[in-house]
Amino acid sequence: MPVIYMDHSATTPVSERALAAMLPYFREEFGNPSAVYGYGQTAKNTLEKCRERMAKALGAFRSEIYFTSGGTESDNLVIRSIAAMKRDKGRHMITTMIEHNAVRRTFEALEKEGYSVTYLQPDPMGRITPEQLAQAIREDTILISIMMANNVVGTVLPIKELAMTARKRHVLFHTDAVQAVGHIPVNVHELGVDFLSLSAHKFHGPKGVGAVYCRIPNRLLPMQTGGGQEKEVRSGTENIPGIVGMTEALEEAVENLEGSSVYLTGLRDHITRELCAVPGVHRTGDPVNRLPGFCSFIVENIHHSVFLVNALNERGICVSSGSACSASSREASHVLLALGYDQEMSGEALRITLDTENTREEAEYLISSVKECIALVRAREKKKEGTLEGSVRKAAGR
Amino acid sequence: MPVIYMDHSATTPVSERALAAMLPYFREEFGNPSAVYGYGQTAKNTLEKCRERMAKALGAFRSEIYFTSGGTESDNLVIRSIAAMKRDKGRHMITTMIEHNAVRRTFEALEKEGYSVTYLQPDPMGRITPEQLAQAIREDTILISIMMANNVVGTVLPIKELAMTARKRHVLFHTDAVQAVGHIPVNVHELGVDFLSLSAHKFHGPKGVGAVYCRIPNRLLPMQTGGGQEKEVRSGTENIPGIVGMTEALEEAVENLEGSSVYLTGLRDHITRELCAVPGVHRTGDPVNRLPGFCSFIVENIHHSVFLVNALNERGICVSSGSACSASSREASHVLLALGYDQEMSGEALRITLDTENTREEAEYLISSVKECIALVRAREKKKEGTLEGSVRKAAGR
Repeated sequence: MPVIYMDHSATTPVSERALAAMLPYFREEFGNPSAVYGYGQTAKNTLEKCRERMAKALGAFRSEIYFTSGGTESDNLVIRSIAAMKRDKGRHMITTMIEHNAVRRTFEALEKEGYSVTYLQPDPMGRITPEQLAQAIREDTILISIMMANNVVGTVLPIKELAMTARKRHVLFHTDAVQAVGHIPVNVHELGVDFLSLSAHKFHGPKGVGAVYCRIPNRLLPMQTGGGQEKEVRSGTENIPGIVGMTEALEEAVENLEGSSVYLTGLRDHITRELCAVPGVHRTGDPVNRLPGFCSFIVENIHHSVFLVNALNERGICVSSGSACSASSREASHVLLALGYDQEMSGEALRITLDTENTREEAEYLISSVKECIALVRAREKKKEGTLEGSVRKAAGR
Repeated sequence: MPVIYMDHSATTPVSERALAAMLPYFREEFGNPSAVYGYGQTAKNTLEKCRERMAKALGAFRSEIYFTSGGTESDNLVIRSIAAMKRDKGRHMITTMIEHNAVRRTFEALEKEGYSVTYLQPDPMGRITPEQLAQAIREDTILISIMMANNVVGTVLPIKELAMTARKRHVLFHTDAVQAVGHIPVNVHELGVDFLSLSAHKFHGPKGVGAVYCRIPNRLLPMQTGGGQEKEVRSGTENIPGIVGMTEALEEAVENLEGSSVYLTGLRDHITRELCAVPGVHRTGDPVNRLPGFCSFIVENIHHSVFLVNALNERGICVSSGSACSASSREASHVLLALGYDQEMSGEALRITLDTENTREEAEYLISSVKECIALVRAREKKKEGTLEGSVRKAAGR
């Protein structure tokens, strides 16, 4: 049975072009950029060339790009670093209730260290307004961190306006753009953000590599110290093949952005229309300001999305219930709860995230399969109602 | 001109076998281990299989292995984590004066946060004795971190005895084994250490991936929070291709350890004998307890090793002055200063680190080239003595 992969928000395969670009750096051009001889200098040149290309693709200066091991490290580096550096200025920070765990758990950890954090409440579509942000800013606010695109409902947030609000009040602004980069236009200087996090494996680059944009003249404190690589900000031998793959994948994504966006928006809207025609299926997130290939729903009366995701998996379709990181736990998504869905509905989410690799035929197969599986799961769940498991659930208020 | 690479302590090319093992995980088996469908579960199984294989190669239990982005992260994770977790018990830690910067700079950073650190002074060959360690342990000592093999002079330290000394006094013991793993036998349970750091690219695995051994029932606090991967210790989507490559490379290195050790020791001793016959050339480090392929010297009267390294580079030979991370700066090595060499001699180090890829013919070419280049650099430097540059140097006491 051929597998249809439609969970591109979780991870993507490395593109052929990115992998081809990486290959020579594993065995032939394998030098350590810190070494002074030929191999080392070639590696150093490659590293700096990648930094320049990444900067160009993001509308940044070369000196504003730092390489990391991924989106989680990038988020942690910015938030923990600014918290430590600015603690004498203040201990208040602002974020939203719908951030990825890499941001959310990091703020929670800082709360335990004596920082105070305001979690902005989004509207039911996942939107945060500049006015809302302005109201939350205090004299002692040292950092604002708001994601560019949400990983559970696909809503794209107005980062340019939010960053401008922060700038007016002289507060540093970070955006976790892990879901956005390579999928919608991202120009850091136009956005006016101070910091931006990205992860290669979300746009057909390799896993284990990411980057931080840090606007001049801001600086970051290292989280890991050592050989002093990345201008003392991030020590550790540079992952040259990974960085080369990420750079190539980003350029490829940016080059194809316009065409892929049109194609994916069409496919997304078709799937969304078709599935929303099923009774008890509702789209989640902003219908207009959303990621091009991002379909997300609540499917009522399936008890939990894991049943639906498993049923689809048996038909060779890979989709998910929400964010990949929490997919394996049955906890209700904190994002959906924040949007106002109740405990039960928050456990009934379905996320289908498309890529240009996905054909129209695959979309049709998906639509019919989802419809069939919803019916199947609902029938099964209905049957259970009379059973012991059903009684236990009912007693537990679920 | 063919290039002869003899700087394997800086970094190594990925082995053919490791790269072949990695390749399917970039594009075919690319799933996110947190996902519940087939691709995700395959990735999860691969991840856990690698953990088991790594554990076996190191003499550990599977649940004692955590994957990281490299040696620097592993060192930072252990040291910063234990410092934070045990701060109520005490704020004193012990390390040596000859650690890699990933350990040294991390302790220096913690000193600024109010911790007190004892830096053990090695003997001129880079040795630290259990008696020395025992004397330094205090009531409030919470962690001891001593490297297994030194990256500048190749000395192998008596980790088993040092760890036993720590254990007797109920102090946690970490070893940075970045230069040792894959090069000498490393069995963590036999060594009796609590924590061990390793880095894949030092034993023909890929860059950007490493691991920490954490002995049961010790625990680590996360440095980066997020999706909760690696049992909440190290969040971030797992670098599956990197982890697969590291595992394969470690198994390959361990399988070949005996044979390669005999071969490398022979080659090392031959090169060392030949070069030490040159007047003013001295071997550094322990002659017996040393890494098999590790040749290290002080070459007097060359003013600075960068001249010698560059001259050899012009002949297609890649060697280094000391650790890769500090190779590009002209600062004298803190390791050599700690061993008692003066400022000038510490700047005149030469490091040649071999691998089984290096042939006997290459070794002969290296020997004759080093001899010629030493003569060349010394003649050049002598000539400069009457010049302005020479006077400036003299005035600066160099």
